[in-house]
Amino acid sequence: MSEKIVVATGVPGSGKSTVIDGALKQLKAQGITYSILNYGDIMLELMREREGISDRDDMRKVSTDHYREIQREAAKRIARAAKKEPIIVDTHCLIKRPDGYYPGLPRWVLEELKPESIIIIEATPEEIAGRRTRDITRRRDKELREEVEEHQLMNRATAAAYAALSGATVKIIQNRDKGLNEAVNEMVEALR
Amino acid sequence: MSEKIVVATGVPGSGKSTVIDGALKQLKAQGITYSILNYGDIMLELMREREGISDRDDMRKVSTDHYREIQREAAKRIARAAKKEPIIVDTHCLIKRPDGYYPGLPRWVLEELKPESIIIIEATPEEIAGRRTRDITRRRDKELREEVEEHQLMNRATAAAYAALSGATVKIIQNRDKGLNEAVNEMVEALR
Amino acid sequence: MSEKIVVATGVPGSGKSTVIDGALKQLKAQGITYSILNYGDIMLELMREREGISDRDDMRKVSTDHYREIQREAAKRIARAAKKEPIIVDTHCLIKRPDGYYPGLPRWVLEELKPESIIIIEATPEEIAGRRTRDITRRRDKELREEVEEHQLMNRATAAAYAALSGATVKIIQNRDKGLNEAVNEMVEALR
Repeated sequence: MSEKIVVATGVPGSGKSTVIDGALKQLKAQGITYSILNYGDIMLELMREREGISDRDDMRKVSTDHYREIQREAAKRIARAAKKEPIIVDTHCLIKRPDGYYPGLPRWVLEELKPESIIIIEATPEEIAGRRTRDITRRRDKELREEVEEHQLMNRATAAAYAALSGATVKIIQNRDKGLNEAVNEMVEALR
Repeated sequence: MSEKIVVATGVPGSGKSTVIDGALKQLKAQGITYSILNYGDIMLELMREREGISDRDDMRKVSTDHYREIQREAAKRIARAAKKEPIIVDTHCLIKRPDGYYPGLPRWVLEELKPESIIIIEATPEEIAGRRTRDITRRRDKELREEVEEHQLMNRATAAAYAALSGATVKIIQNRDKGLNEAVNEMVEALR
Repeated sequence: MSEKIVVATGVPGSGKSTVIDGALKQLKAQGITYSILNYGDIMLELMREREGISDRDDMRKVSTDHYREIQREAAKRIARAAKKEPIIVDTHCLIKRPDGYYPGLPRWVLEELKPESIIIIEATPEEIAGRRTRDITRRRDKELREEVEEHQLMNRATAAAYAALSGATVKIIQNRDKGLNEAVNEMVEALR
């Protein structure tokens, strides 16, 4: 009956999961519960059921048309779940692939999902580079910071397009290195 | 018969109204007239007629579906008015609310409004902070500047999405502290 | 049978043509061929066939509705060509006109074109200003750099909207003054 869907996004290293977990803990104490659904997990589940694909890396091997159909089916599944309880969808504005940024919530997904709000968890490129230290052994720090800056800018632009298409609000939350509490409080505010 | 609709946007403190007024004065001297319609005023008018809501703050209390319906109805009303004379629509790319940025011209509004052009009036975050001095008594200047920077960036991204959806052009006009004349001239150019 | 359409964009001075040519040369050596179609050329061709317009400057004189119809027809023509061989479409995210930025691939164009990917060729505003020296005799360098910066930012935002509408990926390639080889390699990667 609730049909409340909030989409939570953020580049790797943004601390998205930590912010969501902190917010859900506080909200639970106030009697407000959400289920978290991971978009990629649901797509993999659908691919397993229908195609016998069980490895996340194999998901890329299906045709574009088929991938998009699975994307839409995942949105339908989430929309059905949202009839029972409020849902946080853990996903990406843009998925970074070798062939470029791929939209996580293109038009045909938004039409099924009808999210109330899209939340972007951000940090500075420096902070995110620092949190991804394991990834930067073989690349220069500067390059990584520029990549993160570009990805975060493109995420903002894409979220704006999702808002124009669906009417969802867009909320940007800064999760700074010493600002987790503040980020969690803003997340609680957005989910209340 | 004209059906010319130009949307004028800008964050509070951008000087949007001053630029519009200056441009309309010059255009009138050239025999070109526009009517200005304020989107929020028309929505309030519709809510008053249909729901008896007469306070702008109460507009937020209606359901999301209902709010969107009123948003679409307002677009229809403006499109009807544009059959008689050219219209400037005074509105926002994104309305800043506690739950995030809400799109002023989502897809279903653009479908009715069919604007020819979307104009964004901007100034530097410093200038806008300065013009909003009354608002900053209880907050730090730096925070306000960052907020304005984020809001203006998101407005640009959203206007780009509106253009992709509707085919409207996007024009960005800088209204700098000592540059009102220049901004007015650019506005005249865009409206001629 | 291939139906592969890649859109290549970039502001004047980005070196788009040089990057495309370099990439196609390398790909040809690998046995991969693309046809390049220039969107503006195809629109002019259609206007010549239908309206007898033969001058690019006269294209702006047709009505907005008519211009959009020709835009859609050009997309259909490209989509038909793509049934025979992979196509690179040389065009713009946003066309800079006196009345503002006009979208090169609005919704009704994307619906016909269904591009797989949108590539943005960029350089720094300084580099682009330098490459456009012939244009800056009568204007200040700083102004030109700011214009390029604004245009490139708006192109990114618009490409993000195109992705949200069509599911195309967006790839940003930096074509720095001493980095042509790197840009060509990235282009080859994106087209392979």
